[in-house]
Amino acid sequence: MPSTDPTEGSAGGPADEGLLSPVRAGTAAEAATGDTAFLQAMLDAEAALTRAQAALGEAPGAAADAVTAAADARRFDLRDLALRARSGGNPVIPLVADLTAAVKESAPDAAGYVHRGATSQDSWDTAAMLVARRTVALVLADLARTAEALYGLADAHRETVMPGRTLTQHAVPTTFGLKAAGWRTLVLDAHERLAAVRLPVQLGGAAGTLAAFGALSETFAPEDGPRLIAAYAAETGLAEPALPWHTLRTPVADLASALAFTTGALGKIAADVLVLSRTECGEVAEGSGGGSSAMPHKANPVRATLLAAAARQAPALAATVLGSLAAEDERPAGAWHAEWQPLRELLRLAGGAAEQAVGLAEGLRVRPDRMRANLMRTKGLMAAERLSAALAPALGRQAAKAALTRASRTAVEADRTLAEVLRDDPEVAGALPPDELAALADPAGYTGSAAVLTDRALRRPGPAT
Amino acid sequence: MPSTDPTEGSAGGPADEGLLSPVRAGTAAEAATGDTAFLQAMLDAEAALTRAQAALGEAPGAAADAVTAAADARRFDLRDLALRARSGGNPVIPLVADLTAAVKESAPDAAGYVHRGATSQDSWDTAAMLVARRTVALVLADLARTAEALYGLADAHRETVMPGRTLTQHAVPTTFGLKAAGWRTLVLDAHERLAAVRLPVQLGGAAGTLAAFGALSETFAPEDGPRLIAAYAAETGLAEPALPWHTLRTPVADLASALAFTTGALGKIAADVLVLSRTECGEVAEGSGGGSSAMPHKANPVRATLLAAAARQAPALAATVLGSLAAEDERPAGAWHAEWQPLRELLRLAGGAAEQAVGLAEGLRVRPDRMRANLMRTKGLMAAERLSAALAPALGRQAAKAALTRASRTAVEADRTLAEVLRDDPEVAGALPPDELAALADPAGYTGSAAVLTDRALRRPGPAT
Amino acid sequence: MPSTDPTEGSAGGPADEGLLSPVRAGTAAEAATGDTAFLQAMLDAEAALTRAQAALGEAPGAAADAVTAAADARRFDLRDLALRARSGGNPVIPLVADLTAAVKESAPDAAGYVHRGATSQDSWDTAAMLVARRTVALVLADLARTAEALYGLADAHRETVMPGRTLTQHAVPTTFGLKAAGWRTLVLDAHERLAAVRLPVQLGGAAGTLAAFGALSETFAPEDGPRLIAAYAAETGLAEPALPWHTLRTPVADLASALAFTTGALGKIAADVLVLSRTECGEVAEGSGGGSSAMPHKANPVRATLLAAAARQAPALAATVLGSLAAEDERPAGAWHAEWQPLRELLRLAGGAAEQAVGLAEGLRVRPDRMRANLMRTKGLMAAERLSAALAPALGRQAAKAALTRASRTAVEADRTLAEVLRDDPEVAGALPPDELAALADPAGYTGSAAVLTDRALRRPGPAT
Amino acid sequence: MPSTDPTEGSAGGPADEGLLSPVRAGTAAEAATGDTAFLQAMLDAEAALTRAQAALGEAPGAAADAVTAAADARRFDLRDLALRARSGGNPVIPLVADLTAAVKESAPDAAGYVHRGATSQDSWDTAAMLVARRTVALVLADLARTAEALYGLADAHRETVMPGRTLTQHAVPTTFGLKAAGWRTLVLDAHERLAAVRLPVQLGGAAGTLAAFGALSETFAPEDGPRLIAAYAAETGLAEPALPWHTLRTPVADLASALAFTTGALGKIAADVLVLSRTECGEVAEGSGGGSSAMPHKANPVRATLLAAAARQAPALAATVLGSLAAEDERPAGAWHAEWQPLRELLRLAGGAAEQAVGLAEGLRVRPDRMRANLMRTKGLMAAERLSAALAPALGRQAAKAALTRASRTAVEADRTLAEVLRDDPEVAGALPPDELAALADPAGYTGSAAVLTDRALRRPGPAT
Repeated sequence: MPSTDPTEGSAGGPADEGLLSPVRAGTAAEAATGDTAFLQAMLDAEAALTRAQAALGEAPGAAADAVTAAADARRFDLRDLALRARSGGNPVIPLVADLTAAVKESAPDAAGYVHRGATSQDSWDTAAMLVARRTVALVLADLARTAEALYGLADAHRETVMPGRTLTQHAVPTTFGLKAAGWRTLVLDAHERLAAVRLPVQLGGAAGTLAAFGALSETFAPEDGPRLIAAYAAETGLAEPALPWHTLRTPVADLASALAFTTGALGKIAADVLVLSRTECGEVAEGSGGGSSAMPHKANPVRATLLAAAARQAPALAATVLGSLAAEDERPAGAWHAEWQPLRELLRLAGGAAEQAVGLAEGLRVRPDRMRANLMRTKGLMAAERLSAALAPALGRQAAKAALTRASRTAVEADRTLAEVLRDDPEVAGALPPDELAALADPAGYTGSAAVLTDRALRRPGPAT
Repeated sequence: MPSTDPTEGSAGGPADEGLLSPVRAGTAAEAATGDTAFLQAMLDAEAALTRAQAALGEAPGAAADAVTAAADARRFDLRDLALRARSGGNPVIPLVADLTAAVKESAPDAAGYVHRGATSQDSWDTAAMLVARRTVALVLADLARTAEALYGLADAHRETVMPGRTLTQHAVPTTFGLKAAGWRTLVLDAHERLAAVRLPVQLGGAAGTLAAFGALSETFAPEDGPRLIAAYAAETGLAEPALPWHTLRTPVADLASALAFTTGALGKIAADVLVLSRTECGEVAEGSGGGSSAMPHKANPVRATLLAAAARQAPALAATVLGSLAAEDERPAGAWHAEWQPLRELLRLAGGAAEQAVGLAEGLRVRPDRMRANLMRTKGLMAAERLSAALAPALGRQAAKAALTRASRTAVEADRTLAEVLRDDPEVAGALPPDELAALADPAGYTGSAAVLTDRALRRPGPAT
Repeated sequence: MPSTDPTEGSAGGPADEGLLSPVRAGTAAEAATGDTAFLQAMLDAEAALTRAQAALGEAPGAAADAVTAAADARRFDLRDLALRARSGGNPVIPLVADLTAAVKESAPDAAGYVHRGATSQDSWDTAAMLVARRTVALVLADLARTAEALYGLADAHRETVMPGRTLTQHAVPTTFGLKAAGWRTLVLDAHERLAAVRLPVQLGGAAGTLAAFGALSETFAPEDGPRLIAAYAAETGLAEPALPWHTLRTPVADLASALAFTTGALGKIAADVLVLSRTECGEVAEGSGGGSSAMPHKANPVRATLLAAAARQAPALAATVLGSLAAEDERPAGAWHAEWQPLRELLRLAGGAAEQAVGLAEGLRVRPDRMRANLMRTKGLMAAERLSAALAPALGRQAAKAALTRASRTAVEADRTLAEVLRDDPEVAGALPPDELAALADPAGYTGSAAVLTDRALRRPGPAT
Repeated sequence: MPSTDPTEGSAGGPADEGLLSPVRAGTAAEAATGDTAFLQAMLDAEAALTRAQAALGEAPGAAADAVTAAADARRFDLRDLALRARSGGNPVIPLVADLTAAVKESAPDAAGYVHRGATSQDSWDTAAMLVARRTVALVLADLARTAEALYGLADAHRETVMPGRTLTQHAVPTTFGLKAAGWRTLVLDAHERLAAVRLPVQLGGAAGTLAAFGALSETFAPEDGPRLIAAYAAETGLAEPALPWHTLRTPVADLASALAFTTGALGKIAADVLVLSRTECGEVAEGSGGGSSAMPHKANPVRATLLAAAARQAPALAATVLGSLAAEDERPAGAWHAEWQPLRELLRLAGGAAEQAVGLAEGLRVRPDRMRANLMRTKGLMAAERLSAALAPALGRQAAKAALTRASRTAVEADRTLAEVLRDDPEVAGALPPDELAALADPAGYTGSAAVLTDRALRRPGPAT
């Protein structure tokens, strides 16, 4: 009998290495958002800040070089920093101490230029934006590839008819081309929204006034504040904000919304693939479905499942980030800290989902024969609406409708197609020649503007891949 | 003793008339989002659809006139429609029946042109976009007025010094002008995001292929689909979508995100007002605070409280809407229906919050004297950083820092200002002349680039009011 | 072309009368949670408070009678109260004014005993608990009826075999009885959780110390505080709290969690019904599916759709309520106000969902023939695992497994049943006699402990209906 | 200028080692919920399953011993398992392969008894419950310690008067004892809810029928299913479920709700500490506030900040888990996978918060002098209500009220105490002797039933620590 000691199982460290999140395990987005990536981004932010001050003549170039050289994540003890972050509530405080010590070793005079004039949030927020920029670039590339694959599917299946389904029931036909074009539209929408998010550098000092820069330098005038921000932006490659945004969280809120949109858009594709993969539907299959050794007939739609799981998690994480807009004072007691994990998790989920979506879209196997077969599951009743309209001129609207209602009931009860039943109805036969009746009764011909709409949607240019 | 009969209290109808939501009770946004407004919008959508078909020669002009004339919410029984909505799951089904009957009365030939070729979701989604457009216009106007009022506050208090607060503690000084300029920035961000949301018409028929339009008309070719959508958009004044978006929910997701952002941005203002209104701070007060008859000394920040309450509710509602992106098939069984109330509630919360924000911003009373007094609560220690830097050249960095640490401790223990303590320190007195010491020790002079940043933020143009 | 005047459509009042929420339109839960029900509950709370003071000798019995007589919602103007609620942020303030005036008319001496010593939150929270108690009783009754109907389904279909489905794919067989027994288990879990929520009266005065009661009375000693709370609880029929809970929100959080659980539990039933109702599955159908005039072959699972929509909305609403646990001070500026609408909406969604669930469970049509037919969609491969095990003793484990893998592939490719293919395999035929092979190859016989588990689950007693 | 290569910063691995979550970095709960802890728990589940089969005579005791011996997390490659989890969507599939291989090495005959008859979800859910049980035990212990410390605070400050605050404004006095007793009540509520969550073992096989156990064994009858579940429960120490709960997610939903409640309850304490720590209030301070080297006057309430941040994150995570109640089929495609990270994060946040709460409660410094001083910020107006009532018998109710309104206004305008102003009012002086007036005008005496309620709340027994 096992121990019930609550500390059992504690061994082995705290780490999340992806075991609970297969959607992103091993993806580039996962690596780009790991603790090490955040640590490196903080160091990049610190180095850029010193370089920016050097660019303004507020720090020696040698100091900038020394800080830049020291700002290498491999030289710092990540876990130790995480533990020491507790006493001040954020990891910048111990990191600045360690970075200063490291610089002091190689260049004693440069140590005073580490984090000079800045506040913890300047470094953390800038680091988060650097991590975001790097991860967003990965997501955008995967969205572009996904859109391209979906273009191919839509183009290839422009005429592939399948049942349109509403509230789980066959409604009228549609095409797989139109469906894939719709998926692509959502992916392009996501790309557009994500690419539009502005990721600025953060710099304000303790209360967002940049006052310490002036206190520490005889040459730094209030007017130099914006110049320093611009130089910092240039060094990091991030955007230049109009104001320090310690508690003006537009960038973070925009990013969270766009990531949740992205994950949700991919979740729509997954939702459709899951329906169409059902054993009873069988209209699509993932290229390499998850096999089950115990059940050889199973080919699980694993990618779609992982996408669906990501789409279920993202909205709530975005809600937490949006809730942090209401951040009091010049730095809030909780709202800021509450953003960190949800934002990282959003980046990971969107990044993992986008990578899975590439595989899903590129590998999807489409089965027009199954679509066609399923189309007749309702005995051709999906064309009833059209037949009723076609008969109305000859029979009158009421009589046409009654004839169709009658025939539909017979078709279902007798397990015959609507076309067969109607052919036997003398009134109908008198009104429509057999070949015309057959054509009108074929659901496959009843796709309206599907192809036109598909073409139109595909004319929207996709991003370069 | 009262009855515990569970049906007690059931009398009086189902209605939500605003009793539980003072933030929006009586606002224009509330009226623009009531059930009656939705009913009228559905009728507007139906009338516009017939007019659009008339514009394409697919319906007689007289039919369009008849449907337009009949499409008046006052002629329909709202509650009866709500109850009949249950059997099909949406209110369009009974409404179309009633509208058809109403048209038939006045123009029997026109009845066939009601809702012709459309599906319930076409009408509902278009109606929701009409309601959204009308409400968003109200929100934008209130945001513009709020931004204007905040401009005035920022401009007037460009030099009004107050404590900068981080993690609830005084940090270094800031200005009320910078704070108000930040608030305005967020309001402009919200305006920008909300104004950019594209609100399209919805038209696709049962499965999004527009097939029924062709089935019902000999002249309607597949190529006419996009033309009909364009005509419908023109009639409603809404945007033209590339595809039917029954399960491509970008417009709804964008709207929800922008509304949650708006509510959260106003929540930031509220969060600050709530802190600054505290009895102990007293730096601002609402123009007409909620009085308490029992407690004459109280002037509750009611508007800020209601804004804060709205900001707490909006993110979760947006999460539900974002969750509905993952909508299966051509119409989903639940995801669509789950959007309706959260989206309406978001419109109401943002609309109510924006109207409250106008009153808050226009009526806010600012108390520079209290800000100044609070500035000295920490005995001038907010200037310690600057003094330490100023003494460093003369005393050396370590000695300067030690002098300040010593003096700070003494100031707190002896309840004296830092300036007084330092004046008595011969080492310091030797290094800095009295007037320079006094100037450097005054926190009010230590505002860095606050004014420069304020000016810069105010240069961003606001929307016309 | 329609007007784009943003105020158009504003006519007709603010009300939500259920048009956007068919899941609860017309239900008893909707009526029990309307604004009028809240108004009456506030009045009930006020009357009970005066009666409680009378019971302690702190108010004349005649005053209690007068307040009780006046506390009739029909005498008050709901909308006017909603509008006046804005200035103080809650509806109790204007209601107390109106109630006092009403009492004064009939019994001038009694007017001073209206709301005597209490604070707005005392009345509002007590009213919310009264509304909750009444609505919860309705939900519990509907859950009990649902559980009873599910008992009947599980019992009737104890042996009805159907495909077990995992990750959308057929896995191994299960029974509909086990599925229905599982549904019932969740419904009983919901009943249990909801019935266990403690709904207490609220009484604390301005800051939760009951001090005003002592200030207003020479006879009221500090020790009388708990006695007054007990008397108030007795008058309302609500539970007695240990402390005023103005910012100790356990009751509200518990209620929200239990309601979200209830809605989610019903959402599980809906999720299954939606899958099994699919045109391709057809294993169940709602008793009276939502018809579509345009598409006679459709029988939409409308109740399941509305349940699914409710289940998508409830968690986020509960999150908002749980977020309000972090309520500062003796009454928070926002957290309290943010609870009202989400809590009401949760009551409505759970109440509406429970009423829909009764109809769903009592009317569900089960189609064992379709289940049986679907079972063979995978050609009997669901029994492969069992056959492999059965052949292992004779053929050896590896050879048995290989034989099954071979046969499974052949069955799928040749569209034959696994039993047929195996019968033709001499090695297998030598190891198993034909009738034994046939029995083992029939998926319908491979249901393991399904019946035993069903019986076990059904032994759990349900609540009285 | 730094590279903008999107893969920069990717080095260093995927891990979350706590850098972004100081609330739990280094806590026992973090270790108990790391990937390694999950891996060990899966192995514990596998070993317990073989032992359970051995206990029923379905597996050799030696096999159970061999599996148990091999089930040591240190022997497995965590990251490799995480990566291989992607193809099937969960980590159990590769783990079973590796465990089987490990067993085969030491005991070839035992390998066939690894995971025998089970499905991935059996192992994962059981592992999650094991992790939960271990973590919940840690949380409960910390809640017990917190409650004990709060008992001490409440007891010590039973008579410590402070301003009661509502909507940010001073209302009437309360005591710190009552406040601390309220905090303790919430902590006990959390303990109660968390301790009551039932954590069952999971066992059902592929579709929840336990069919594979029968297929693999000649001696295993359907009736043995429940016996095996019971034996498995006994081996793990977890509860015995009535049914396999693959898609009956009561345990997970209950756990998530209780953890969100716990985090929110601690968030209430944090919210109060943050207010009372404000520079302007200064009524409490954390034992060892986070220092700021740049600002020696700052003592940040870091623990409260981290608690507040946790409380902001938990509700949304619980919402995701509650949303997964609506899980279709015998195993859902997404809903199950979506639970894993949110549930782990909830365990970590609650566990980290509880550990921080111990430190907060045990180290909190209370400053009765500041409370007393703040009490007079409103010049004694908090006693106005009481004075008005006291004067009513002599002056008449209207005149008494008028006198107080007049005096209150004078007190505020002239910056005098209400007592001083009233002493100078001849009418008042005639009605109340000076000492009685002074006593009634002292807010510190106006605490109503605070002490009585405190005592009552403290009589509720706490859990053993």
